[in-house]
Amino acid sequence: MRTVSTSPTASGETPARRDAEATKAAILKSARYLLTRHAHADITLKDVAERAGVSPPLILKYFGNKGTLFARVMSFEADAEALLDAPLPELGRHMVRHVLESQSQRGLDPLLRIAFAPLHGELGDILRANFRTQVTEQLADRLTGPDAGLRAELAVGTLVGLGAMYGVARVPHLRASAIDDIVDRYAPLVQAQLTPPAR
Amino acid sequence: MRTVSTSPTASGETPARRDAEATKAAILKSARYLLTRHAHADITLKDVAERAGVSPPLILKYFGNKGTLFARVMSFEADAEALLDAPLPELGRHMVRHVLESQSQRGLDPLLRIAFAPLHGELGDILRANFRTQVTEQLADRLTGPDAGLRAELAVGTLVGLGAMYGVARVPHLRASAIDDIVDRYAPLVQAQLTPPAR
Repeated sequence: MRTVSTSPTASGETPARRDAEATKAAILKSARYLLTRHAHADITLKDVAERAGVSPPLILKYFGNKGTLFARVMSFEADAEALLDAPLPELGRHMVRHVLESQSQRGLDPLLRIAFAPLHGELGDILRANFRTQVTEQLADRLTGPDAGLRAELAVGTLVGLGAMYGVARVPHLRASAIDDIVDRYAPLVQAQLTPPAR
Repeated sequence: MRTVSTSPTASGETPARRDAEATKAAILKSARYLLTRHAHADITLKDVAERAGVSPPLILKYFGNKGTLFARVMSFEADAEALLDAPLPELGRHMVRHVLESQSQRGLDPLLRIAFAPLHGELGDILRANFRTQVTEQLADRLTGPDAGLRAELAVGTLVGLGAMYGVARVPHLRASAIDDIVDRYAPLVQAQLTPPAR
């Protein structure tokens, strides 16, 4: 479906309402930017406000609190689409490369945000639910054979661990290795869960 | 070397000094207890103080700030010893079982704390340095053949990822599976890094 562009006057929108929507969008964009570069625990409302050019109380007015604001932008959907974008026989290599390239090019891969999910409270629960429906269950739907759900979770686990070692533990041998070399070594572990060899 | 026990009177220790040491020990014990059950970002000085039965300012007096207090107790040493306590040919199975049993019995395995390490600041740097010297380098020292350092990091990565999926993402199929079944499936991935099959 195409959307029809209407002028603000025709739609009856007031300038104040347009301003509010633009401000909300700026706040979400700011939160999204910071979340791809820092652990959410390290980000303050003041950081988000400064980057968006608004006051912290305005963020509270529009989004309630930091938890509900972050829940809005903590979706794995866009990343999961890129992560899973390869035919099944090559998916292990693709996913390992995707994690490493996200880390080295963007500083942190979005998948790794699940490792920072708070253990208590609403924000963690939203992240966990998003992670399951958008990542592990999407992958499980691609797999054939028994225990697809478990195998998908274990495959994603290897990727989250690789991302944590690269981006958080920052271990020296991994950081110094060529991406191709890591893909060659690590992708077979992932692929063994996706398309297990016959026993 | 044996240590010779001396009476407080003989050593010249004052009761006040003994009290201070006991208080410091209680604070460290409280911090250690909370850190095995919560992400450090979720723990406040007030939590530590309440559990230790002291005031938050007393913690600041003895330990400077929350970061330096936590750095004192965020050692991987005790856990690394238990994690690596198996002959090399069985080490993959042992490590996978250790991570899963720590998770299911204690709520969080200590190894997983590396995934919560802050990306900036002194606390994260101390955690990263401890993790390397106490975990990945200890494991690398046990391995033979080329690229032992990288293989140790990748093996530990698979374990950190498994722990994150179990303890943080809390994915349902993994949580519902028997530990023996997960060990059978996952240990070969770990062992392939420890004792790689000849190419």
